[in-house]
Amino acid sequence: MDEFPMDYEIFDLGDVTLQGGATLRDAKLAYKTYGELNADKSNAIVYPTWYSGRHWDNEWLIGEGMALDPARYFIIVPNMLGNGLSSSPSNTPPPYDKARFPNVTFWDQVQQQHKLVTEKFGIETLPLVTGWSMGAGQTYQWAVSFPDMVQRACPFCGSSKTSEHNIVFLEGVKAALTADDAFKGGWYEEKPAKGLRAAARVYAGWGFSQAFYWDQVYKEMGYSSLEDFLVAFWEGFFLDRRDPNNLLTMLWTWQNGNIGNTPDFGGDHIKALRSIKAKTIVLPAEKDLYFPPEDEEYAVKYMTNAEQRVIPGVWGHFAGGGVNPVDTKFIDDVLKELLAS
Amino acid sequence: MDEFPMDYEIFDLGDVTLQGGATLRDAKLAYKTYGELNADKSNAIVYPTWYSGRHWDNEWLIGEGMALDPARYFIIVPNMLGNGLSSSPSNTPPPYDKARFPNVTFWDQVQQQHKLVTEKFGIETLPLVTGWSMGAGQTYQWAVSFPDMVQRACPFCGSSKTSEHNIVFLEGVKAALTADDAFKGGWYEEKPAKGLRAAARVYAGWGFSQAFYWDQVYKEMGYSSLEDFLVAFWEGFFLDRRDPNNLLTMLWTWQNGNIGNTPDFGGDHIKALRSIKAKTIVLPAEKDLYFPPEDEEYAVKYMTNAEQRVIPGVWGHFAGGGVNPVDTKFIDDVLKELLAS
Repeated sequence: MDEFPMDYEIFDLGDVTLQGGATLRDAKLAYKTYGELNADKSNAIVYPTWYSGRHWDNEWLIGEGMALDPARYFIIVPNMLGNGLSSSPSNTPPPYDKARFPNVTFWDQVQQQHKLVTEKFGIETLPLVTGWSMGAGQTYQWAVSFPDMVQRACPFCGSSKTSEHNIVFLEGVKAALTADDAFKGGWYEEKPAKGLRAAARVYAGWGFSQAFYWDQVYKEMGYSSLEDFLVAFWEGFFLDRRDPNNLLTMLWTWQNGNIGNTPDFGGDHIKALRSIKAKTIVLPAEKDLYFPPEDEEYAVKYMTNAEQRVIPGVWGHFAGGGVNPVDTKFIDDVLKELLAS
Repeated sequence: MDEFPMDYEIFDLGDVTLQGGATLRDAKLAYKTYGELNADKSNAIVYPTWYSGRHWDNEWLIGEGMALDPARYFIIVPNMLGNGLSSSPSNTPPPYDKARFPNVTFWDQVQQQHKLVTEKFGIETLPLVTGWSMGAGQTYQWAVSFPDMVQRACPFCGSSKTSEHNIVFLEGVKAALTADDAFKGGWYEEKPAKGLRAAARVYAGWGFSQAFYWDQVYKEMGYSSLEDFLVAFWEGFFLDRRDPNNLLTMLWTWQNGNIGNTPDFGGDHIKALRSIKAKTIVLPAEKDLYFPPEDEEYAVKYMTNAEQRVIPGVWGHFAGGGVNPVDTKFIDDVLKELLAS
């Protein structure tokens, strides 16, 4: 059994009927808050998690003197359904457990987060929604689902619709994970370690840029060799309380990301982009291999109050992961500027 | 048993002691030639194969009116050791069969090809050596191993030293292939189809660029959907008489590619680049995800008689694979220019 810290709260979602038709009974949303909600409930920021991330993995962007300063804002980090803390294949009782856990869309994720924000806290306006990667996808979804509620948005290293290349990259991760016979179609008792390690090695080439490896930046991160980085960082990452069915649930959400699938938009991604009212700064990373800046440039064209800034440098997708202080400062500065506007 | 066409010749290499120390006894080099060797033996071109490629996979660049015109040149396509036609894990008798097949370097490959060219045909000069991908790696190796023999070189979509990012990408392919229990550490009787298909899906994201998928160029290639492209092109590719141990042998060669490992250079890649005498045009593809143009730009800096041209467009690594007529013409035009100089 995976051991998690108990530093978070649970919001009971009750019976949740998902966009795909399944009903997840007695569903749970795990979340953590930072700072205090002010009297008029006008200082709340929503900051969703990313693919396999947990609330504590978001904390690098929260702190005194930063844009997300708990002395000033009430920051809510909702854990994605499927991440192992909120309702997930790994913690849901039968019959919707393990391989039978239903598909969850970005729209589903944000509907449930909205329940938390409004029903639990009575919040009706959000000065900011922001997030990395799939957190960026949820940020876009918030801006589309609740256009009059989200004042500002900053999706970093993510997209409003998952590109076909991104879908293919994820197919590789999925194929490696499930190639291990120990996966047993999702009905494993023991985690398929070989598949998890294989998925980690597939991911390794995508997470950081060609130039990152050329410059051996992993040595600055404390890894002693390329192989050490692959084992200690990447395999360690996938073995750190990540559950294969959970990973596949989130992977499905990601592959099927499209704000156009919000009800009333009938799959029309561009119409959904046009509906966004939030003042938005979109932050792709220069050398992100699966969310390249061109894709975000395309999206911004259809948004009425948005601009793109590119996070420069060699860190690729992980520019938004909080591991490089230079990139963290870049993101934090943009968030400060956006919040001041 | 894989069925291959019998349209090629075998050159008996005898007992080959490889750079790593193993001796491959009674080794075979499979090759095919196009055109006629002229009287003074001055019209031979060597055009090695690529990762998992066979001589027939090179034929798109050979033809009447093309640079590699059999009416004018004697074109030799040697199959790489490990590709299933030349000595390989799949066709070598015990004890060096299957998982026990020894490691083969680019230097080993070119030493054996040199034997064919000189001992079988008595050729002492080569107007051109060219090749795609690992064929480019062999092209570089020819120029370093035999600087007075190779007059011109045109490596396309490849490198003289495998970059760390490229090594990581290949780790993902390898991990997916070997995650299938049916691989049995290389001692399978039946090919591990699940692992081959997983490797194919991992490869799919790397072979073509983000923009290729964005533009759905696979539809121009005759595939009806993204999934159809993944199954019919990519899985079909890996299932088409590709043997897992062969793939891993070639993968090792690729991961360990470095012209600096030529004897006398002591691992010094830059010294090896400086030793090249051939007039060289290096052709990376603009959006190649594992041989990006920056890496080749770096290499050209150290070469005395070389320049870089970038193959433009969205085809990524497969710009050099002969599937897109525009890219084929670009490469052919460069080869014509180079041969005329």
